[in-house]
Parts: sequence; structure tokens; C-alpha cells
Amino acid sequence: MTSSSSDRPGEFELIRELFAPLSKSAPGAFGLTDDAALISVSSDEELVVTVDALIEGVHFLPDDPPHTIAKKSLRVNLSDLAAKGAEPKAYLLALALPERPDRQWLRAFARGLAEDQKEFRVSLIGGDTTRTPGPLTIAITAFGAVPCGTMIRRKGAKSGDLVFVSGTIGDAGMGLDFAEVDTSRDLTIEAEALIERYRCPTPRVRLGLALRGLASAALDVSDGLIADLDHIAEVSAVRIEVDADRIPISRALMDIGGDSVELRTDAATSGDDYEIAFTAPPAKRDEILSVARKTKTQVTEIGRVMKGAGAVLLNEDGHEIPLAKKGFTHF
Amino acid sequence: MTSSSSDRPGEFELIRELFAPLSKSAPGAFGLTDDAALISVSSDEELVVTVDALIEGVHFLPDDPPHTIAKKSLRVNLSDLAAKGAEPKAYLLALALPERPDRQWLRAFARGLAEDQKEFRVSLIGGDTTRTPGPLTIAITAFGAVPCGTMIRRKGAKSGDLVFVSGTIGDAGMGLDFAEVDTSRDLTIEAEALIERYRCPTPRVRLGLALRGLASAALDVSDGLIADLDHIAEVSAVRIEVDADRIPISRALMDIGGDSVELRTDAATSGDDYEIAFTAPPAKRDEILSVARKTKTQVTEIGRVMKGAGAVLLNEDGHEIPLAKKGFTHF
Repeated sequence: MTSSSSDRPGEFELIRELFAPLSKSAPGAFGLTDDAALISVSSDEELVVTVDALIEGVHFLPDDPPHTIAKKSLRVNLSDLAAKGAEPKAYLLALALPERPDRQWLRAFARGLAEDQKEFRVSLIGGDTTRTPGPLTIAITAFGAVPCGTMIRRKGAKSGDLVFVSGTIGDAGMGLDFAEVDTSRDLTIEAEALIERYRCPTPRVRLGLALRGLASAALDVSDGLIADLDHIAEVSAVRIEVDADRIPISRALMDIGGDSVELRTDAATSGDDYEIAFTAPPAKRDEILSVARKTKTQVTEIGRVMKGAGAVLLNEDGHEIPLAKKGFTHF
Repeated sequence: MTSSSSDRPGEFELIRELFAPLSKSAPGAFGLTDDAALISVSSDEELVVTVDALIEGVHFLPDDPPHTIAKKSLRVNLSDLAAKGAEPKAYLLALALPERPDRQWLRAFARGLAEDQKEFRVSLIGGDTTRTPGPLTIAITAFGAVPCGTMIRRKGAKSGDLVFVSGTIGDAGMGLDFAEVDTSRDLTIEAEALIERYRCPTPRVRLGLALRGLASAALDVSDGLIADLDHIAEVSAVRIEVDADRIPISRALMDIGGDSVELRTDAATSGDDYEIAFTAPPAKRDEILSVARKTKTQVTEIGRVMKGAGAVLLNEDGHEIPLAKKGFTHF
């Protein structure tokens, strides 16, 4: 064990000083002093669980600030819960650190988690800390709750449904391009905004909760809009058409990239958006737009569900745009 | 996407072919086709959750067989549940693969999981597959159930309680020593047995369930017997004395290492045992030995709980054995 005056704390000191305070509002976390945590679920609710691992050099960049790395790790999981209509409750953090951890770095990391715990009302309830000879790896398991039978599935889109997406698409993909080059040089405000969208996505939690009973199918856009809608198309056994010119593009992205079919195609096939894409019957359109206003979330109708298979991108003439790839794949 | 005839399957093919079949008995897994899984908990039960990440070169060796790597990853988590008296139910698998996965390797990995799912009655319900520039990393989140209020905590040991441990201690520590040298040369049956204990621990699930209401405190021994009992001592605010000559040592370990205070000290401070160490009032001794017989699990009384602080190892004269370390630490 390292003395508490060291700048590189030991494993248990790290847990006690930095992580245990993040668990203090969750009685089932036992102050992170036990092998496991307890979760109580009320009898009219089901628990929604998801896990996503983030790896340095794959999901974030080595130079990204520690507090945004922490936030992104938590938020991509909260985004999964949001897309399922689940209310976030708690999370487990498995942290594999490449060397004896630096106290300043870890403090900033824990601060990022603390800020997001407040914003999204979740608590750390347990985890695991190990050393790795490889890159920093963060696996978060997130827990949310839904009233029984109300989780929004990927399966459920029906021919005749409309297709919607939250926020704007393509920002994070372009942001990554900027972040990968030297960020020490001067960047425009627009470029900085796109990098921020890559580093710190916004999980659409309030919108997701409001979509229960409205959306027929939903998921969060992580690999790319078309690639992810392809998943809905597959499990729902439908065709999904997206109109390229209706895809919501941010002012920042348009200022930098102009507005062209190429830009929209790139936007629809790049990853890391963490927006909710969903389908719903036309009769629900007004209610959805009302929900969007109430939750102060931009929601845009971008296409339709048809008989057939696969998700496709159409140009303004209604012709299918050939895609080199539909989104990001790991292998 | 890779064609199915390739020896290096794509991400979604991998999930569909190898992992989706592991989820077929869990309706809330949705065949691994959704962003999240659903867990229902009956109103008289609580959910026990734990996560452990295993990393190549840290928790297992690069040459370990894929099916034992899979089993160890699952079993170390089942061991946590067992120590809490929880009945294993389901798990999430976050897999970070260092290159495009080899189909044969992955088939053997999935076979290991399938065998253990049958043995321990658990189901895969979700997960995450990514590529990593680093070593193979496997984070498993395991879910178990306990009747409300019955989880066995680390906190609860009382002065006057007895200390017990399941199985034998030190096998895996010595097994790792053998496995780290060239395993292609001829090894004795005893050495092979110890390596197997390192590669594939036995979670004491049936014993753990039977200890509800009997044990005052419990945990699974992963960092080392004394180091882990130190955790019970700390949260229970007691002193724990372990008699070195009562620590259960396997025939294989004794045949190789002889029987000495040094061997017993090494055994009590090396990691990877995955046995349950627990405390209980003397009045429960007979019931505990009866439970041990019924669950066909070796259980040995090894010490006592006193007023004071910390876990210590005593020699046959009752003097404290000085320890260079109490167990394994990552930092």
C-alpha cells in the first residue's frame, strides 16, 4: 500500500478516496467495501442492463481530458438506456489502468463522473480496478428501470411508420477528424464544437423516457445512422428509407463542410453520434413533436418504414445512394 | 462484414454465430439483438451484481487454452456471487479482442462458456465486442439473486466468531509459478493439477447458498487469504487470527512444496484461490460442517475473530508471522 501522500495511490486508497464518495447515495453499494452490490427493483418495474467498454485509441484519444473520458464512458451507456426508455439508476465501473495511476489524472476522471452523476441522477455502486499492460480500458455496466413491459425494443418497426432522429448527425465523426490531428494549433469555434461532440456526447434521457408508448422501435446511434437503422430493419423485418436532405446537420458542421450529398452521406455513416433513432406510427407524429418541445430536444423526421429489408439512404430524387460502408465496424 | 466462410468473422457474425446461442434460454436477452437486456426480479428478492475484468498477461497467460480463459472469466464472478450467498442468474460479456478474431479460438472460448452455463445455470444476456490495440480483455458483469436482506456481507464478523475457508489454499499461486515457465516440458501430475487450479477455479456456489443465515461475514479469496480477511477485519472492525498450521493445503501442493511455515505463508498470501473465507459464531459450527458434507465441499476451521484490527497469520506457538505482503496488489 502506498502512503496517502504519494502522487500514485494504491488500489484500495484509490477506491476509498476517489470512488467511494461517488457511491454514497446508494445504500446497496456499501461504500464500495464489499464484493458485490445490491439492487432492489420494485415489483412493477424491470431492470434494463447494458455494458459498453471504451478503449484509449479506439473510443477516445490519449490526449482527451480525463473528465471527458469519464463522461463519455458513462454517457454512451446512459445513451443505451435512454434509447430503451429506461430511467438511469446506477452503474458499475471496471477500470484497467496502464500504469500506477496518477492522482491528478484520476481526480479529474472522478470529477467527470461526479458531475454526470448529478446531471443524470445515477450512482456508482461497484466495480473493479486492475492494471493492464495495454491501453486504458473502461467498461461501464449501467442499470436503468422501466415499468414492466414498456422497454422500447429494436424490434417493432412496422411498414408505414415514420423514422425520426434526435439532435444532429455527423458532428462527432467530423470532430474525431479534427481531434486526430494536432489540436494544439488554433481551431475555429466550429471545429472545437465538433470535437466536444466527439468527446462528450449527450444522452437523450428525458426524450427516451417520453418515447415510451410512442416509439415502435428505437436504438442509439453509435456506429452510424444507416448502420444502426439497419439493425432495426433486420430485427423488425422491414425496409427503412432515410432521405439524405432531411438528416439534421448542425450549423457547425455545415459551416465547415458545406452542404452536399457527400457531407450528408459521410454524416449518416460515421459513428459516435449517440442520438436516438426511432420509428413511430404517423398518428403519433404530433405527440412526438410535442414531447420534443417539452424535453427541449431537437427531433427530426427523416424517413419511412416500408416492406422489404435493410436501411438505405435516398437522394432528393428518391434514388438510393450507394454506400461504401453503412457505419463503423470493429472487424 | 466478412463472409461466413472466413476464418476471421466480423463483429455481428461473431455475435450471431457464437454468442447468441448462449442467450437462448433467457427471454430478456432478446437473442442479443438489442441495445440492452431486461432482468425481472421477483418482489421478495434482491439482485446482487458484480464485475471483474480479466486481462491477458495479468489474470491469465497468453498460452492458456481459450476454453479455460472463458471459464475463469465467468467463474471469478460466480465466485463473488457465491461468497455473497447469491444464486447465479445471468451475465454480460464485454470482450475486447486484440485483432480480428480467429474463428477456432473463439469457438473454443464460446464452448467454455457454454459448458459453464450448463454447470452453473446461468445465461449470457448481453455484452459488447470491440477491438483493442492492447491485450485480450474480458469484463464480465454477473447477476445473482438473494431473498431480501440475506446477502452475506463482508461486514458482520464479531469478536468470538470462528473463521473458516473452503477447499485448499495456495494451489493457484504455485500453479501460476509452473504455468509461467515453459509448460511444453514434462510436468508431474501434481504440477498439472496446480496449473489447472490457476486456470480454472471452482466457484463454491452451493456452499455459498447454504451459508445464508450461518455466516456472519464472507468474501471470496482472490488476492490472498490474509489480504482478503484483512478486508473483513477492516469493515467489521475486528482482528482476525489465522493459524498457519490449520490452513488447508492440498496433497499436490504438499507433494511439491513439502510442508513448512514458509509454504503455508506463501499459500496464505498468494492469489487466485477463489475459495470462500467466512466467519460464524461457534454455535453454528456443527451446522456449518453438516452443510459442508451436504454440498460436498471441504470446509476447514482456520482461526478466530477477536477485538482489535487487521488479519494476522500465527505460527504454532501463537506468534505472529511477519509478512512481506498480505497478498497481491495491482499497484
